[in-house]
Amino acid sequence: MQRSIFKILIIPIEPMELAITLDSTSGEPLQRQLYSELRRGIITGRLARGLRLPPTRELAGNLGISRTTVTLVYESLVSEGYLEGRTGAGTYVASCLPDELLEPTIELPTAAASASAEAAPPSTLSSFGRYLASTELLGPRKDPEFQFAFGRPDGEHFPMGQWLRLLNKHGKSAELSYLELPKRSQGHPLYLGRSRGVNVQPEQIIIVNGSQQAADLVTRLFVEQGEYVGMEDPCWVGAKTIFESQGARLWPVPVDEEGIRVSELCRPETPSMKLLYVTPSHQFPTGAVLSLSRRFELLAWAKRANTYIVEDDYDSEFRYSGRPVPALAGLDTSQRVLYIGTFSKVLFVSLRLGYLVVPPNLVHAFAHGKWLTDRHSPILEQLVLADFINEGHLERHIRRMRKIYEERREALIQSLDANFGNRVRIVGQNAGIHVLVEFATNLSTDEVMEQAYAAGVGLLPAMHLQQLKVGFGRKAVSFIMCYGALTPEQIAEGVRRLARAIKQ
Amino acid sequence: MQRSIFKILIIPIEPMELAITLDSTSGEPLQRQLYSELRRGIITGRLARGLRLPPTRELAGNLGISRTTVTLVYESLVSEGYLEGRTGAGTYVASCLPDELLEPTIELPTAAASASAEAAPPSTLSSFGRYLASTELLGPRKDPEFQFAFGRPDGEHFPMGQWLRLLNKHGKSAELSYLELPKRSQGHPLYLGRSRGVNVQPEQIIIVNGSQQAADLVTRLFVEQGEYVGMEDPCWVGAKTIFESQGARLWPVPVDEEGIRVSELCRPETPSMKLLYVTPSHQFPTGAVLSLSRRFELLAWAKRANTYIVEDDYDSEFRYSGRPVPALAGLDTSQRVLYIGTFSKVLFVSLRLGYLVVPPNLVHAFAHGKWLTDRHSPILEQLVLADFINEGHLERHIRRMRKIYEERREALIQSLDANFGNRVRIVGQNAGIHVLVEFATNLSTDEVMEQAYAAGVGLLPAMHLQQLKVGFGRKAVSFIMCYGALTPEQIAEGVRRLARAIKQ
Repeated sequence: MQRSIFKILIIPIEPMELAITLDSTSGEPLQRQLYSELRRGIITGRLARGLRLPPTRELAGNLGISRTTVTLVYESLVSEGYLEGRTGAGTYVASCLPDELLEPTIELPTAAASASAEAAPPSTLSSFGRYLASTELLGPRKDPEFQFAFGRPDGEHFPMGQWLRLLNKHGKSAELSYLELPKRSQGHPLYLGRSRGVNVQPEQIIIVNGSQQAADLVTRLFVEQGEYVGMEDPCWVGAKTIFESQGARLWPVPVDEEGIRVSELCRPETPSMKLLYVTPSHQFPTGAVLSLSRRFELLAWAKRANTYIVEDDYDSEFRYSGRPVPALAGLDTSQRVLYIGTFSKVLFVSLRLGYLVVPPNLVHAFAHGKWLTDRHSPILEQLVLADFINEGHLERHIRRMRKIYEERREALIQSLDANFGNRVRIVGQNAGIHVLVEFATNLSTDEVMEQAYAAGVGLLPAMHLQQLKVGFGRKAVSFIMCYGALTPEQIAEGVRRLARAIKQ
Repeated sequence: MQRSIFKILIIPIEPMELAITLDSTSGEPLQRQLYSELRRGIITGRLARGLRLPPTRELAGNLGISRTTVTLVYESLVSEGYLEGRTGAGTYVASCLPDELLEPTIELPTAAASASAEAAPPSTLSSFGRYLASTELLGPRKDPEFQFAFGRPDGEHFPMGQWLRLLNKHGKSAELSYLELPKRSQGHPLYLGRSRGVNVQPEQIIIVNGSQQAADLVTRLFVEQGEYVGMEDPCWVGAKTIFESQGARLWPVPVDEEGIRVSELCRPETPSMKLLYVTPSHQFPTGAVLSLSRRFELLAWAKRANTYIVEDDYDSEFRYSGRPVPALAGLDTSQRVLYIGTFSKVLFVSLRLGYLVVPPNLVHAFAHGKWLTDRHSPILEQLVLADFINEGHLERHIRRMRKIYEERREALIQSLDANFGNRVRIVGQNAGIHVLVEFATNLSTDEVMEQAYAAGVGLLPAMHLQQLKVGFGRKAVSFIMCYGALTPEQIAEGVRRLARAIKQ
């Protein structure tokens, strides 16, 4: 840790002296420190009403800080009424001070406030609020060195230069200041039609803040407390959390190497479902691709059962072999599919842009839902993304990343083979930026997680709705390992460490 | 309208000829047009499997378009499997075509799909979904020339140069690619403390996509179907819609020139409320400022009634006279206030950034709520905004806009006086970017709206929860007139037109 250096100056001002304490290493901006010091002096009366302050140049020189900083502080205090500027005659403490009540009631975190953070949340929360208060949704604050737990894309190879050029171009345009309604259609129908076999009218596309918001909106529009939502088993924990938080009951449907087993849906004990959530292009986490025949069966079932299918097409861009299969939304003739797409996986994570494609008779409700929830997603990013697609950068980037991810995938599989031999089983198709890995071990899932984390390796446990075990049977644990944001060298080292950590 | 020019070329390719149609004025990018033409030719068999296409340079020359465009189209078709590139030997139609099913099932909107847009939404929607499907939340698509209906800020005087400089600075940084969690605290505690008398720990601030999302989150976390939410009467229609859509029952509380009448809350018939939504710094729409004594009464009431107060501090930055009054959140000692702030009013509308300040024992639930809903608000804009605040641009901009808005306000009041004389009454304090205006007329609110719109003037009717009438009594209509985004000249002309339109 850096040594803390305090700078305390006694500045002579007529007719008194003022001690100003600035700490250049505290992390608090000097401007704020100076502001607080002067304001406190005025409020406590150490700086009397009508007192003349030193000129900005002089004070800046004495304190060894920039004159701009001092000027900004003076201006702030003038605008708030603590100081008065008399033209040509300097700056004075105001003769009539603003309401003392403007002084914050809590200057520093008091013991009471800190205690209150530990206090229980109020009993008046809704069931949604209680769910949020009682669960731990966010992972550990600090990423381990080798983080295999999150499906992040690579950040190094993104063509940031092109992105910035477009950011600048659109940042200058007047559109930014005035637009209120989402520009829903820009570029996206083109992209969808070409790569996913989905052909839609621009109105059917609702731009949202990533697939998370899409799933949340779908749930709010369809599901009441206690109603059923069908999910693949194993499944993506994120979607499970969204449905559960809103009081849905989950109905697990097993997955095999052809994807979700539609025949299970046709059994008499299957309850009436509001939604069925699926990941057909690359089942999460098994990686199975839903076969074409099952796709048609699934659509026919949805129509019969009066259910909507939520198709989360989260990483269809990355396939390394085999033929692409068209999205359910592209095969659907009875308007039963709510399609979710995202750009976080193909561009960068912090870009929160995704889209929903909904049947025409649901456009009104979804557009209103987005409007009511947060008006629209950031316009600037939408303008930039539209150009990024239209100028061909997106497809070029995807082609490039396909090669890079395929190498990383290879590296992960080889490392696992080399370090675990016949104690590892890798599940899933040649696609995406993660694999499902099963380890033969006597340790529990939690023990593996803990020992891996201590060795600097982050893992995401596979989420089984039922105790559906495959392969090694009881003496095995399964994890999702994401390799998108790790280099082949990092992957190799991470797997070596993992092997050492759980060897027994 | 521009004349449509079609470019039809017959390009000789061995052993057949292909007609390619490009329309340079269609608005559809040439690249997409060329892509569609070639793809259609391949799918329909006009371009036979194994056929050699002309070199990019030759085709570009023939079509009079850039070679890059042709190259990108070829590359796309190769990556999708329609074409094959043989090194040194040109580009050929693939001998083995990808699954015909990749062809979109709907090429153009069919009669069935169009009819479906008119079809009723499904009966399986939740009550939230049914509310959205059955109401009209979005205003008219086309703004009238003189739009007084929306509280937009001015767009001309925003220091876009500074904003772009910061956008560039942060766009280059690696933070963008990796950050997943919101940077909640940057700059905002400083801003809050200095201008609003609220002093909080950074953790208590939840950055959201504008005040709309803040109000939506608060409602979801507290209110179940059928529970009561208290609202000022008259009130902001946006908040009313959020509460209603989630099944809340509204309890109106009258407002006078000192703001919400707290004594009304203490009557025995007042039901138990989950939330009370107020706009104390500048009541929307009356403009009343909640007096200091009522602030203390309100906080005491909330504690007794075990209710939370939602303080929407939507435009406290713009006061033209009188002393600022501290926010409720700054006076609250019993952790009963959920404070909502927004930057849309002080910066620009399409920037969707606002914040919630919540008591320490609610931080966990709200942080999870934001995370579950859409992960986080755009990181780039947060980084830019933090610097924008820290470098002093925000305060400078606010100071500048105060003068400009005050002039516009003057212009509106003078125009109304000059054109309506004693048939107009203007309600509210000297603050904000709107006024509440009451016109003496025999026309109904709808008739005034319609005639004004026909004359190019947009108005927002004041939303009364009860038939609470003031001033002129029954023969009057009241509207909210926002002047932030109109110049004094536009204001004068808009009011002249309005006077002519409703003169009778």
